[in-house]
Amino acid sequence: MVYVILVYDIDENRVAKVLKICRKYLTWVQRSVFEGEMTDGNLELLQAELGRLIKDEDSVLFYITPTKKNFKKKTMGKSKEEGRNIL
Amino acid sequence: MVYVILVYDIDENRVAKVLKICRKYLTWVQRSVFEGEMTDGNLELLQAELGRLIKDEDSVLFYITPTKKNFKKKTMGKSKEEGRNIL
Repeated sequence: MVYVILVYDIDENRVAKVLKICRKYLTWVQRSVFEGEMTDGNLELLQAELGRLIKDEDSVLFYITPTKKNFKKKTMGKSKEEGRNIL
Repeated sequence: MVYVILVYDIDENRVAKVLKICRKYLTWVQRSVFEGEMTDGNLELLQAELGRLIKDEDSVLFYITPTKKNFKKKTMGKSKEEGRNIL
């Protein structure tokens, strides 16, 4: 298992599809940001799905860590986090 | 020292000021994302500066880890990273 923080910057023509893919694997935490625990296999699947969709001008960043315990998280302002998306 | 990933979602009326503050302390890596190594003291200063500026509808997420070595980073698509901003 790995813990993943994903931040995307995607052209508006493709952003709905990217959101849909990310929600299958991770939890939405803020505009442009998802995070969650996943298997290495699912991370590969997620990257493959995104790879087929995104274009050169898009960008997706993955921060991958063995465990959530490796970092502290702090939110300032409105916390927009939603519950875990079961799908 | 800590290594910080910062992701913001800020109303457009305030986003230029937030960018300016973040650039004083961190490196811009993608739209809405900064990261970098900083002292605990500078992290407090950064949070204080942002705290005075942002409103309830804004959101800033901090992922704080003792060392950059705690995570792997992967970029898909265009890599938009700029050099370290000295200011």
